[in-house]
Amino acid sequence: VADQHTVRAYDKDLDLLERRIAEMGGVAEKMVIDAVDALAAGDAALAHQVVGTDSRLDVLQREIEEHAILTIARRQPVAIDLREIIGAIRVAGDLERVGDLAKNIAKRSLKIGVETRAPRAIVGIKHMNDFATELLKDVLDAFAQRDVERARDVWERDAELDALEDSVFRDLLTHMMEDPRNITFCAHLLFCSKNIERIGDHATNIAETVFYLVTGSNLPTDRPHGRQETDMETDARGELR
Amino acid sequence: VADQHTVRAYDKDLDLLERRIAEMGGVAEKMVIDAVDALAAGDAALAHQVVGTDSRLDVLQREIEEHAILTIARRQPVAIDLREIIGAIRVAGDLERVGDLAKNIAKRSLKIGVETRAPRAIVGIKHMNDFATELLKDVLDAFAQRDVERARDVWERDAELDALEDSVFRDLLTHMMEDPRNITFCAHLLFCSKNIERIGDHATNIAETVFYLVTGSNLPTDRPHGRQETDMETDARGELR
Repeated sequence: VADQHTVRAYDKDLDLLERRIAEMGGVAEKMVIDAVDALAAGDAALAHQVVGTDSRLDVLQREIEEHAILTIARRQPVAIDLREIIGAIRVAGDLERVGDLAKNIAKRSLKIGVETRAPRAIVGIKHMNDFATELLKDVLDAFAQRDVERARDVWERDAELDALEDSVFRDLLTHMMEDPRNITFCAHLLFCSKNIERIGDHATNIAETVFYLVTGSNLPTDRPHGRQETDMETDARGELR
Repeated sequence: VADQHTVRAYDKDLDLLERRIAEMGGVAEKMVIDAVDALAAGDAALAHQVVGTDSRLDVLQREIEEHAILTIARRQPVAIDLREIIGAIRVAGDLERVGDLAKNIAKRSLKIGVETRAPRAIVGIKHMNDFATELLKDVLDAFAQRDVERARDVWERDAELDALEDSVFRDLLTHMMEDPRNITFCAHLLFCSKNIERIGDHATNIAETVFYLVTGSNLPTDRPHGRQETDMETDARGELR
């Protein structure tokens, strides 16, 4: 009976982690959408709202980390359950950074609010963001359902987002060369497009975590956590296959 | 005697974590210096070397994480010791990302190797990198010695690096406006300068971890891990004071 009690308590610990992560996912998704909407529309109120929401993610991540560490210390879980907890910590870390990236875009939108916006230059950014939002949504579903196939699909589609960023980069340079008055605005958009590309990288990280949770295979040592910080990297995609 | 044995085993666990982190710190520092040297000199061999070194950091981080989690599960440490382990995980995470950022610069250097480099445009980047390297070196010393004052000093100086980035941003825009042939090169440099600014943010994170290790105060909930991802943020610096 004592053992059963321990198991039940442990399940409750895991449940709590799952629920917190689902909440983080919902908040992060909305921030990503709102940030680029605010940028495209020059909507300062919406941008401020995105910036303000970020602290919610920070609190949730802190809670998840603390609860995870305490669970490990208290319940001394064996391999498979330890995996669940490490997975929760990783996903929370990725979602927290997705929120930071959305916040960066919102802050930049506020900064460039008064300058001339070139609507044509922003089309590519919107398209990138739609794509990144979809990756994020799909990978959170994959995580909730422990669906490896769906995770693998996200992981593969991230290459498209990288290609989109390359094309947006070139497009923005063209706008700069055409008219020097576009330079400042487009320089800011370069950073926004990089932020969106990195949101996709975090979706990819989460896909890798789903893979790890379900299969127990360790993440590849040549790219652990690395992707989220890596520019211009589309090679070495073979690890999940 | 059994208790003493446990304590000694635990000390050995912590020692191993410390040594691995010191090794990561040395590798990361060198990568940051070499990456910008390679960029400034157009030295492809050096850039390739930086890119190749990054996997060493990834392996070390993986080892630290795994060893830390196993230590928690095996030894069930109490509060103060748990702090040491969580601190090790955090610092390893920051150093791994410093390596990624250096790698990004090195990769970008390889990409722009064939284009016209404007030596004047790169001066600010070199200055920023000297400053960031110093922050990193100082905070690693602060971590090794658990020196809160030194950590606080790094934490405060990071604002200067942010100011430097602002100035480099404006400088690069000027070069772009002066001569459209500078636009592509300077667009790449914008990303390099952002990468260097983020290296400083990771130094700041490590400073916060030193503070947490020594004082036991939790990191502030309104900026946990957030700084490393945050653009243009110089406000809300009051937490450590």
